[in-house]
Amino acid sequence: MEAAGRAFKVYKKLSGRERAKFLRLIGKEIYAIGDDLIHTVMEETNLPEGRVRGERDRTVGQIDKFADLLDEGSWLNAVIDAGDVERSPLPKPDLRKLHVPIGPVVVFGAGNFPLAFSVAGGDTASALAGGNSVVVKGHPAHPKTGALIANAIKQAVKKSGLPEGVFGFIEDSGYESGELLVKNPLTKAVGFTGSERGGRALYNLAAGRPEPIPVFAEMGSVNPVVVLPNALKNDHASIASKLVASVNMGAGQFCTNPGLLITTKSDGFDDFIENLVHEVKNTEGAEMYSESILRNYQLGTDKILSHSEIKVLGKSGSTTGPEKAVPVLGLVKATDFIAKPSMHEEVFGPFSLLVVCESAEQIIDVIEALKGQLTTTLWSYEDELDNYSGLISSLVEKCGRLLLNGVPTGVEVCSAMQHGGPYPASTDSRFTSVGVSAILRFVRPVSYQDFPQHLLPEELKNTNPLGIWRLVDNQWTKDPIK
Amino acid sequence: MEAAGRAFKVYKKLSGRERAKFLRLIGKEIYAIGDDLIHTVMEETNLPEGRVRGERDRTVGQIDKFADLLDEGSWLNAVIDAGDVERSPLPKPDLRKLHVPIGPVVVFGAGNFPLAFSVAGGDTASALAGGNSVVVKGHPAHPKTGALIANAIKQAVKKSGLPEGVFGFIEDSGYESGELLVKNPLTKAVGFTGSERGGRALYNLAAGRPEPIPVFAEMGSVNPVVVLPNALKNDHASIASKLVASVNMGAGQFCTNPGLLITTKSDGFDDFIENLVHEVKNTEGAEMYSESILRNYQLGTDKILSHSEIKVLGKSGSTTGPEKAVPVLGLVKATDFIAKPSMHEEVFGPFSLLVVCESAEQIIDVIEALKGQLTTTLWSYEDELDNYSGLISSLVEKCGRLLLNGVPTGVEVCSAMQHGGPYPASTDSRFTSVGVSAILRFVRPVSYQDFPQHLLPEELKNTNPLGIWRLVDNQWTKDPIK
Repeated sequence: MEAAGRAFKVYKKLSGRERAKFLRLIGKEIYAIGDDLIHTVMEETNLPEGRVRGERDRTVGQIDKFADLLDEGSWLNAVIDAGDVERSPLPKPDLRKLHVPIGPVVVFGAGNFPLAFSVAGGDTASALAGGNSVVVKGHPAHPKTGALIANAIKQAVKKSGLPEGVFGFIEDSGYESGELLVKNPLTKAVGFTGSERGGRALYNLAAGRPEPIPVFAEMGSVNPVVVLPNALKNDHASIASKLVASVNMGAGQFCTNPGLLITTKSDGFDDFIENLVHEVKNTEGAEMYSESILRNYQLGTDKILSHSEIKVLGKSGSTTGPEKAVPVLGLVKATDFIAKPSMHEEVFGPFSLLVVCESAEQIIDVIEALKGQLTTTLWSYEDELDNYSGLISSLVEKCGRLLLNGVPTGVEVCSAMQHGGPYPASTDSRFTSVGVSAILRFVRPVSYQDFPQHLLPEELKNTNPLGIWRLVDNQWTKDPIK
Repeated sequence: MEAAGRAFKVYKKLSGRERAKFLRLIGKEIYAIGDDLIHTVMEETNLPEGRVRGERDRTVGQIDKFADLLDEGSWLNAVIDAGDVERSPLPKPDLRKLHVPIGPVVVFGAGNFPLAFSVAGGDTASALAGGNSVVVKGHPAHPKTGALIANAIKQAVKKSGLPEGVFGFIEDSGYESGELLVKNPLTKAVGFTGSERGGRALYNLAAGRPEPIPVFAEMGSVNPVVVLPNALKNDHASIASKLVASVNMGAGQFCTNPGLLITTKSDGFDDFIENLVHEVKNTEGAEMYSESILRNYQLGTDKILSHSEIKVLGKSGSTTGPEKAVPVLGLVKATDFIAKPSMHEEVFGPFSLLVVCESAEQIIDVIEALKGQLTTTLWSYEDELDNYSGLISSLVEKCGRLLLNGVPTGVEVCSAMQHGGPYPASTDSRFTSVGVSAILRFVRPVSYQDFPQHLLPEELKNTNPLGIWRLVDNQWTKDPIK
């Protein structure tokens, strides 16, 4: 952390374009590892080759998107309010605001995305893009992968002539080093993707510091999917097939997999159940990325199924071998579900629970009973929403992203993405951990008052030499100020 | 809080323009109280009539600015990334993001601004503007003022046909009700202006909840002012006069008053000292807004002056009567100051401390030793900054607003204002409590994925019916999408 603190003093002064160049070099160094990286990930995580290659592309792709963002400059949120010396009773000062880095950031890599949410994942990329040095605590499930990626970043640091401390990497299968990193006074923010228990522990540590710091923990959710009667009636087979595929994708190891399906007993309901059961039965069990994750999945399903009100509706019929996670679908009545918050908890893996409602009002009661979610999804056809007043509003209140007639897995990396929702989906619903807006977690605004042109940062000069978007007297423009 | 929770469900659905109308009505109701309000404030706070009338104008003015913001819509931060069904390997979803309210907000009124940072102050105005219901815990120093303003807001709620729970007001001279408000599960955020002790206590309560919530506490600072040699040499008299006036304005009861002056022993130093002493001697002592605040000021000055390294440089000569706060200026060597963090604490009131440095490097050492600040100020003439490499960067790292050749008191309400800095100036340096960006504390982004036009909120429809600024495919525009 001391090296990160010293390096920050140098790194924060780099221009956006210099940082963009450095970020792109990280991407190149990651590709330069070659197939050694692919094989290492596969060996450590049981993930199939296609997924690993895809995730590598996504990882480098998102680093490059942050580089593009630095080049175009909108992340700085440059705002200029011109002064007015004539104003009475007091002259109006000239005020110009932009974002500055906050300081060394500690990142905890995720287990379920060994590349895209780990050592060089979105947290690291956005923190570095914002001008902060980064120290990553690698995830113990994939230490070799972590070391390979860390080395690639270190190469990029070296080749860019930056101080070593710009990027640090720590391996520790226990909790002690993580705790020390969060408590270190030089640390100014924390990024985390993982369990609610883990995220909350870090949050508590950070909040208890003499100088509290923000913890951006993305802790997953059950991602409820509401299927309304017209959709159920007209399209039960296709909806069942899409939902079961989304639940089980990658052995259910996605924070956005839809673990909760909510519908009413209306036309097509029996067919829907039959379709779901058929799909689950025909879903093959898959290896999870570690034995401890598989064990947790088995314990989680045992625990939720110990509720006598939950009936096992379907189970994969093809699973063989104790090393594979068995896809399971449960069923419960809405009144029972609402009464037992322990049924609302995420079971990380290929488990889903169907909640059966008696009425439109009861759907809203179920939604209102839930905690915060990363996503909510609505299946609805032919303007039937007129009969479900307040449903969209309830769904919005619970989530960071609301989908229509789709599946929540697959998180697009773009400006309009919100990946983060009300607690416990994440610790701070005002920020996203996916997409370029993720940089906003690690920067803060500073105003310059009454500075002459030559002392202002380039981004705030009248001439707008970088040609960036700026809010000038409340109008967005790239024009210079006359 | 239950009434606030119920009212939120209704109030959040109002359009921006409907909320703007409601906000403007609050302003009208405040003016409708008439001179009764002015006299009540004067009686409860010892503030002079001009200040009270000015603060009333500022309070209504900032409410109206939030109304203007709602009318123009930029606060929604509408972002649209068009979908692309042709993209391979996977189609790109249509994603559209905007801000939504977070839920009931609890506001703790400040003591030092009975109107502008109290019951209808910036926290309440920004929370209501964002679509949240609000419960204010009034400041015990001005209960009658608080009740008058609360009644004005309640009138506006009634006349707007809104549910009563949109605005609640609680009086309690102790801590119990405040604690209950913060702990209530319906509360989704807290706004506070006051002492570090008070702000931190609320932060700790909120962080310890089963569902932690953000606390936006603005806790003041010493607002260091650095005077460089050229400025000292050429303008010591005028600088001394401006700084002493800023320190003592309103009996020093501003969170931005410059309690720390930093300079070097260079040409003009002795004259500067003489000017400062002269100005302080000729500053009249003033009543503070309550007896307990005055007592705290007296205890604070006694405590800081008990450091043997601090010499009393000047004291008001004209103060008469035990009910007035005595302006005091102390002097300390930089090495002593750096060694004793207890000298870095704010003394709320007309106290200031001059820190004398031996060199340019030592100025930076002093800055680096400080905690986070609301503002930092630099006095510098004739490009002498070339000799102070790193000084601006150090000042920026410590503050939310950096001023050149000015005084930090006077906080303009505009888009480019940042009022909030690194801890303990505020609990979250990424947000401001003054200016229209204050609304961002009480909203969060939600993405809509693959929604058809007729189900999207007006703000995100292709036609842009409200004509607001939107970031469409990473370009700011008011144009409709074809």
